[in-house]
Amino acid sequence: MSLPRIDHASRVRVLRERLAESGHDALLLTDLVDVRWLTGFSGSNGWAVLLGDNLVLGTDGRYAERAIAESADSGATVIAEQLRSRLHDRLVAVLHGEQSVALDPTTTSQHDWSMLASDIAIRSAPSLVKVARRVKDTSEIARIEAAAAAADSALAEVEPILLAADHEPTTEADVRNELEYRMRLHGADDRSYETIVASGPDHAARPHHEVSRRTIVEGDTVIIDVGALIDGYHSDMTRSYVIGDPTDEQCAIYGLVEASQAAGIRALRPGVTARHIDSICRDVFDGAGYGGWFLHGTGHGVGLEIHETPFHSQASDDVIEAGHVVTIEPGLYSSGFGGFRIEDLLLVTEDGSRALTHTPQHSLGASAGDE
Amino acid sequence: MSLPRIDHASRVRVLRERLAESGHDALLLTDLVDVRWLTGFSGSNGWAVLLGDNLVLGTDGRYAERAIAESADSGATVIAEQLRSRLHDRLVAVLHGEQSVALDPTTTSQHDWSMLASDIAIRSAPSLVKVARRVKDTSEIARIEAAAAAADSALAEVEPILLAADHEPTTEADVRNELEYRMRLHGADDRSYETIVASGPDHAARPHHEVSRRTIVEGDTVIIDVGALIDGYHSDMTRSYVIGDPTDEQCAIYGLVEASQAAGIRALRPGVTARHIDSICRDVFDGAGYGGWFLHGTGHGVGLEIHETPFHSQASDDVIEAGHVVTIEPGLYSSGFGGFRIEDLLLVTEDGSRALTHTPQHSLGASAGDE
Repeated sequence: MSLPRIDHASRVRVLRERLAESGHDALLLTDLVDVRWLTGFSGSNGWAVLLGDNLVLGTDGRYAERAIAESADSGATVIAEQLRSRLHDRLVAVLHGEQSVALDPTTTSQHDWSMLASDIAIRSAPSLVKVARRVKDTSEIARIEAAAAAADSALAEVEPILLAADHEPTTEADVRNELEYRMRLHGADDRSYETIVASGPDHAARPHHEVSRRTIVEGDTVIIDVGALIDGYHSDMTRSYVIGDPTDEQCAIYGLVEASQAAGIRALRPGVTARHIDSICRDVFDGAGYGGWFLHGTGHGVGLEIHETPFHSQASDDVIEAGHVVTIEPGLYSSGFGGFRIEDLLLVTEDGSRALTHTPQHSLGASAGDE
Repeated sequence: MSLPRIDHASRVRVLRERLAESGHDALLLTDLVDVRWLTGFSGSNGWAVLLGDNLVLGTDGRYAERAIAESADSGATVIAEQLRSRLHDRLVAVLHGEQSVALDPTTTSQHDWSMLASDIAIRSAPSLVKVARRVKDTSEIARIEAAAAAADSALAEVEPILLAADHEPTTEADVRNELEYRMRLHGADDRSYETIVASGPDHAARPHHEVSRRTIVEGDTVIIDVGALIDGYHSDMTRSYVIGDPTDEQCAIYGLVEASQAAGIRALRPGVTARHIDSICRDVFDGAGYGGWFLHGTGHGVGLEIHETPFHSQASDDVIEAGHVVTIEPGLYSSGFGGFRIEDLLLVTEDGSRALTHTPQHSLGASAGDE
């Protein structure tokens, strides 16, 4: 698989403009995802400093070679020090004399903040990088699309195993194990997150179920939430099933989730708020009297993190823009019944959206037809 | 697999004694691993408060049911609130009037610390729980041992695939994929960490190599670092190989790593410092003139986290005690040569240690003999 090059130098340019507008002299990044987005460095320890005329990447001795190789096209100067205290001293030296150093207080520990505040003029500021990260460039979309394709291919192979669970004993863990193994055979570096396989009246009723060794049986509702990781970028998708012939109630509830998700996708376009998307999906459930069965938000941004802004919820004022990659994932859950969730990953375009996940949404009739 | 019950109530008792000795009125835990150790709650959002006469566990609405079920035997009172702000208010109410609330500044963000400090008398204090977590009880040892056994079984199945790599094309990713899949077939909930398969003159020379699609070839040194996860507890093990007939240099370097690790294991017993263990292993390399090829510390504690105190390094004053579970993992690395690391997981006993990892350490002759 050949992936287009990521243009870190252009990210540095854009972020430097935003830094100038913000009024701060320097930007200190301590969140490793922010550091990776700006410089390309993917190690597990490091920081980056953006100044008007310089970009500095700091890490420890283990990562010296990798930091230089990965950050080359960003133009970063790499500092690598074995000792933690010495790396701190080097950071202080880089920022010495700057009057206002912006730092995100949500991704820096109180301990580290106190250490820094005694030597550097740090100022609490929301992350400029997190906002910039929302709009994906073509290199990022290619990675997310490749990850989504790996998950689509794995699920296509595993669906027949799941749908045969009424006569071939299959556990939630079996389905999860095959999905994660096969995503890698289809080119994924890894899973995007811990795969969810939630089956039956209790487990499928929990949006954040942990996979168990429960055997899936006829009549179960089953929720599979699965994504792949490629070169740091995530995909995210959920499909729901009934094992054997669905009941009228199962068909009705599934139909509501389908309708809610379709309404959310139709509403997704530049200029609407994340709250509006959430309302559109929620209204379908409320109108049918099932609002109390919807236990979470309607979606979120996806990129270098599986959950990133914008978040589709009633608490969000974020405005959707072209280039955002977001999920739309309404669901209905009730203990004793089980649950259904349908989730696709969508790229916001100039006049709507385009799905990056391509696994067909089986109607319940189709799954029953496999018997 | 039947695992012995974890006695959270006794942990609460012991920690309450330590809290009384510390002079603080209350202990606030924001690190999810600390929260899990004390209460049993394994969700992804929550805090715990220990008072002289009460234990309170706070989380969000998604986890209400799970928090109650998992924390039952700790005696915790569970508070679940959908809204973040409301959960904060409930925490403030629990701690209102306490004169000194201990909080670990290394695991609390500056943002959260500032929010709390405006309403509660928080005091910066090192985590009492992290120290208590070092000594493992029998329920913890059983879980770590079961995890180590799953990794042993998977590696036993995958070693023949690796050693045949000189005539059956095999990539680093192939070996990693099989190991992670098979650990689950042998009872693991998951991998303990991202498996390392580092092969050849460049990759095996990097202690923290990321698995690639490089095809393993005759003459390669190969390092496999693999562990399993069972009920939250980790295992950790590394074995090293040569594909085909080893050279005299490979045999000599491997022999040094073997000797260093054996010396470290012999020295491991209650009363020695973690620094001493590091020195013992390091001296073997220094004495042979290879000190510059040893690029990391000699080991670390393992439990609910894959890396926890004590850390065997020259910077550590920690004293080894019976009940600690630690790795001993010296290695030698050089670009162009490749590298070797040998790592076992050991339970410190009254008079020495007992290995929890049981994969045989093949001499290089054995791997060559498979040809």
